[in-house]
Amino acid sequence: MHQPLDVPTAILQRRSIKTFKSDPIPDELLHKLVELTVAAPSSWNLQDWRIVVVREPEQKAALQAAAFNQTMVTQAPVTFVFAADAYAWQEGLDRIFTQALESGAWNEGTVGYFKNAIPGFQTKLGDKNREYAVKDAMIAATHLVLAAESLGLSTCFMNGWSEDMVKAVIGAGDNPNLAIACLVPVGYAADPRQNPGRLPLEVNVSLDRLDNPYQA
Amino acid sequence: MHQPLDVPTAILQRRSIKTFKSDPIPDELLHKLVELTVAAPSSWNLQDWRIVVVREPEQKAALQAAAFNQTMVTQAPVTFVFAADAYAWQEGLDRIFTQALESGAWNEGTVGYFKNAIPGFQTKLGDKNREYAVKDAMIAATHLVLAAESLGLSTCFMNGWSEDMVKAVIGAGDNPNLAIACLVPVGYAADPRQNPGRLPLEVNVSLDRLDNPYQA
Repeated sequence: MHQPLDVPTAILQRRSIKTFKSDPIPDELLHKLVELTVAAPSSWNLQDWRIVVVREPEQKAALQAAAFNQTMVTQAPVTFVFAADAYAWQEGLDRIFTQALESGAWNEGTVGYFKNAIPGFQTKLGDKNREYAVKDAMIAATHLVLAAESLGLSTCFMNGWSEDMVKAVIGAGDNPNLAIACLVPVGYAADPRQNPGRLPLEVNVSLDRLDNPYQA
Repeated sequence: MHQPLDVPTAILQRRSIKTFKSDPIPDELLHKLVELTVAAPSSWNLQDWRIVVVREPEQKAALQAAAFNQTMVTQAPVTFVFAADAYAWQEGLDRIFTQALESGAWNEGTVGYFKNAIPGFQTKLGDKNREYAVKDAMIAATHLVLAAESLGLSTCFMNGWSEDMVKAVIGAGDNPNLAIACLVPVGYAADPRQNPGRLPLEVNVSLDRLDNPYQA
């Protein structure tokens, strides 16, 4: 395994790759990617992503069919499905509290506060619970993408898929609380892609107020 | 400026920091962070984030009031507001196409396809246009968080704020298409924070299907 790239280099070098070699990802490297993915932060440390690492040929073929038949899903040795559980906060909090107490990161006071604050905040979110879970899943997916790049692999954030079909493939067809955030194929790039460029900063970055364009 | 951290190190070292020193971020470093933030990928390269770098004391105070009075917003020298324009795809595409044609990343065929595919896809999204724009903004915010960590700065993803109040502060109170994705204060950590831990992988990572827990 080569020396990982630094963050600025990984960010600037990364491109959305659409073709992959058939070379497999060694188990040890895949495991490292999974660990770096779930090291991402999440709201209240809920870890409300539900990540499915799709590697079986039959499952990859089904996933490709759910993704407008984009061949990168079967070309890549592995495709990560980032699902998000909009109501993860309604169960399993005790094990999160126990871990944080054991590590010393949170004290009893923090946990006592969270026991009220989490259901209070999330209940007020109403139909935005889905959006907040999807946000956490996107943070984790971005950790995967940059970690993979740093370790010599390529990826592509994919939005082109049918949510119902992807859910059926991973076995969540009957779970209305599960949202699909994105798919990310991971593997060794077959063909390079060029940078399509970025708009001048003053178009979508501002200083203090939207009407005050950021100037380099 | 010290040598940036590699991606795995930045990911594992990063904590959500809640207290900041008053030390300012040098202009050159802030500019580097902005450049690395917008280097993030987005759906169709829409770059549909609207990023407001809040630095003025009065604006930081107003933002803190919009964020349940969390003091990290005024402690940190800069807080980034990640807004997302749900209907960015309805305008400004020509400049994105022109750039990609000039760089050679896309050819006329790609652009011709995108001219139909983008409005087709986004129109079908219906009320999910907001979610898709928020996803792009979260990718960019995660680029900022990891870039900042790699360059010796600390951050915190913040979900605790009133969307209407944040929009009013940045001057978007009258724009129904603008969503707030997250706030990210950036600065030099005053107090360290410990890792609250992560659930065992078999809880929220699966192999091929949700009912097949991933085993390390």
